[in-house]
Amino acid sequence: MPTNNTLEPMPRFLDPELCASVAEQFGTPTFIYDEASLMRRADEALAFPNPHGLTVRYAMKANPHRQILGLFDSMGLAIDASSGFEARRALTAGITGAKILLTSQEFPDPSNDRYRKDDADLGMLIGEGVLFNASSLHQLREYGRSFPDSEVSVRINPSEGSGHSMGVSVGGPTSSFGTWHEYASDLNDIATEYGLKIIRLHTHIGSGSDPDTWSQVAEESLEMVRHFPDVQTLNLGGGYKVSRVNDDPPPTDLEVIGRPVKKALEDFRGETGRALGLEIEPGTFLVANASALISRVVDIVDTGKDGHTFYKVDSGMGENMRPAMYGAQHPVFIIPKDGSKNTERAVVVGHNCESSDLVTVARDTPGDIAPRELNTAFIGSLAVVGGVGAYGVSMAAKGYNSFPEAPEVMIDRSGNLRMISRPGRLIDLLRREV
Amino acid sequence: MPTNNTLEPMPRFLDPELCASVAEQFGTPTFIYDEASLMRRADEALAFPNPHGLTVRYAMKANPHRQILGLFDSMGLAIDASSGFEARRALTAGITGAKILLTSQEFPDPSNDRYRKDDADLGMLIGEGVLFNASSLHQLREYGRSFPDSEVSVRINPSEGSGHSMGVSVGGPTSSFGTWHEYASDLNDIATEYGLKIIRLHTHIGSGSDPDTWSQVAEESLEMVRHFPDVQTLNLGGGYKVSRVNDDPPPTDLEVIGRPVKKALEDFRGETGRALGLEIEPGTFLVANASALISRVVDIVDTGKDGHTFYKVDSGMGENMRPAMYGAQHPVFIIPKDGSKNTERAVVVGHNCESSDLVTVARDTPGDIAPRELNTAFIGSLAVVGGVGAYGVSMAAKGYNSFPEAPEVMIDRSGNLRMISRPGRLIDLLRREV
Repeated sequence: MPTNNTLEPMPRFLDPELCASVAEQFGTPTFIYDEASLMRRADEALAFPNPHGLTVRYAMKANPHRQILGLFDSMGLAIDASSGFEARRALTAGITGAKILLTSQEFPDPSNDRYRKDDADLGMLIGEGVLFNASSLHQLREYGRSFPDSEVSVRINPSEGSGHSMGVSVGGPTSSFGTWHEYASDLNDIATEYGLKIIRLHTHIGSGSDPDTWSQVAEESLEMVRHFPDVQTLNLGGGYKVSRVNDDPPPTDLEVIGRPVKKALEDFRGETGRALGLEIEPGTFLVANASALISRVVDIVDTGKDGHTFYKVDSGMGENMRPAMYGAQHPVFIIPKDGSKNTERAVVVGHNCESSDLVTVARDTPGDIAPRELNTAFIGSLAVVGGVGAYGVSMAAKGYNSFPEAPEVMIDRSGNLRMISRPGRLIDLLRREV
Repeated sequence: MPTNNTLEPMPRFLDPELCASVAEQFGTPTFIYDEASLMRRADEALAFPNPHGLTVRYAMKANPHRQILGLFDSMGLAIDASSGFEARRALTAGITGAKILLTSQEFPDPSNDRYRKDDADLGMLIGEGVLFNASSLHQLREYGRSFPDSEVSVRINPSEGSGHSMGVSVGGPTSSFGTWHEYASDLNDIATEYGLKIIRLHTHIGSGSDPDTWSQVAEESLEMVRHFPDVQTLNLGGGYKVSRVNDDPPPTDLEVIGRPVKKALEDFRGETGRALGLEIEPGTFLVANASALISRVVDIVDTGKDGHTFYKVDSGMGENMRPAMYGAQHPVFIIPKDGSKNTERAVVVGHNCESSDLVTVARDTPGDIAPRELNTAFIGSLAVVGGVGAYGVSMAAKGYNSFPEAPEVMIDRSGNLRMISRPGRLIDLLRREV
């Protein structure tokens, strides 16, 4: 049972008074976002080294709230949409179609019932300027049939991916994402058949924080570009890791990993004369640490002198599935009573009747508890779970145990609190029932 | 990379024509439930061996749809609710309060904002007759303060649990569920202080399908009962495992595991004169195999001659989180084209842009692909994912990648198809946004 002995700090944009104020005004649990943090990260992404132009696409699946989409849009970021529905959602948030690149596992097929509705009709999306990235031979063919003689992107599965927290790969032979790199000529044949011009190559493989890996990724991707003479833009996708807890590996420094990418693009231009634009698709990088979940300790139990102390909080996998799903590490900060310095080793668990609903879970080992050193809690203490901005609310088991959804609150640039999502109610879970 | 070489059958209540009809009428993905299967399982649960009366409580967190609650209620089952919201949901479905036992990790605290609303106000719930099961010393104390001189249940953490698919324990020193067995006298002290009468003992530890384990569980639980002279009912909780795929362990036979439980209760009466009623709380047992998810293969890709073939379906962790979360095994049946007998080894993946969104995942190893022998699919083939009735829609990552929720359809006793949940729309995901 691995243990984390280092006390995690409170997220920088919070302090005990602010947490108490949020809990008082909005109740618990409440997601809180920091606009200044979001903007700082967006600025960092916009500074990614590039020799011939850069587009930063926000991977909106990380957190598709319209206020976050709108903020990034106002700063000049574009959008990476993972489904036709996400593309529609971005349009609904006021984003111009031409800024949205749709890269989906599922081609929005108009013969499928769910696409007959206006929610994700591909013809309407394309009509509004949304760009399409074909993730398979089939998708390119279908796109060509519907929109011949147009421009398109293709996603390639280059060879080996570098995986994420669970060792799951987003590239290589065990990944289904993109067209296998050996089939470049098939892509070109389909493009020729339908008069498509392949202008963008996409090779997201989740490449971590090591500049040597990025150098290799850039060079392999540029090798692929040679097969596609009309490609003007190379999209390297996302997967830029952040650091949430003290013993996480160092976070990705975009300036460091970007340097070899920039050099590779410059060398490619020197050799071929082709000045490629660069695109990146950060999600986690932009939003993960700009949000925390303000929860309350609702019970404290223990399992005897050889057992453990458990702090039960009033949130869980309904707000953040990552610990239960990946054994992901999130900082937990207990707001101490009367400024006390006392600490205690405890396991933090969620409020669902589900043994996997752990907050302090063993790294990469869902279901295994991991006690941590924490400020001593009392029933009623606030517990701040950090790093929940990415794949928190968007990927959570919403409504599990019939708990309604938590409200979301933004700390705006002026330091004011602004509710951006109303708290859910039980009725929300019953709406679709006949 | 473990492999399953045995072709899984279609769920018994379906056939290719019916699947095609569902897909035609309701689109894909669609959850389909079989009322006859639900009723058969309820009958099996109601036949659990017992010497002095039985209450079967449906663990509604497995699937809280009002039509399922109503069906089980009409057959004489009672309810196990895991939160105040679930208890309210059961009441809303027309179930009498006295049939609902509330066993929650979180005491519905009226000073907490979310309980100020009518959704889960404990006073209102108790006023409508809902029974309360205190899961901790704190809960018993709070209950006593609010409702002194009343009857109550207590949940005990007996010592060792037998875990579930991930080896996660719902009992023992690593579990936070219930009051640690060494603190029985503290429970009695609190009861005395507030004039509470402890009439029910609850010891859910998820004990699998081995009758010897159940014999031990029953005896240990009855040892605990000796500490509580007013207890009239022993609730052994749930955790009755089912078999979903060919190479799952044999399913729990309630008749077999119930025999030693019955004998232990008889012996206890012989020794003490106390004729205890028995309660069980099946969830998965009742609903898991009574539902399937009718999906469609929307793409087929491969990763070269040393790689894999992937069938991409139009559903995933937004409908069923279990493979991504536990490495859970679900049968997948591809409806063959024109009755062909051709098979192929393929990996079935969901439609989310998420590498963990696998359908044929390695057992207990979330994120690792597991190719299976399947009927050869074509783009457009229907893919039936079985065993999704429990912790399917209730625990899914609803709205991930902004995919709207799937409709739910019941095959009623007469064989008619009845929509019980309307398909979701994108707007449903935007309602709470300000």
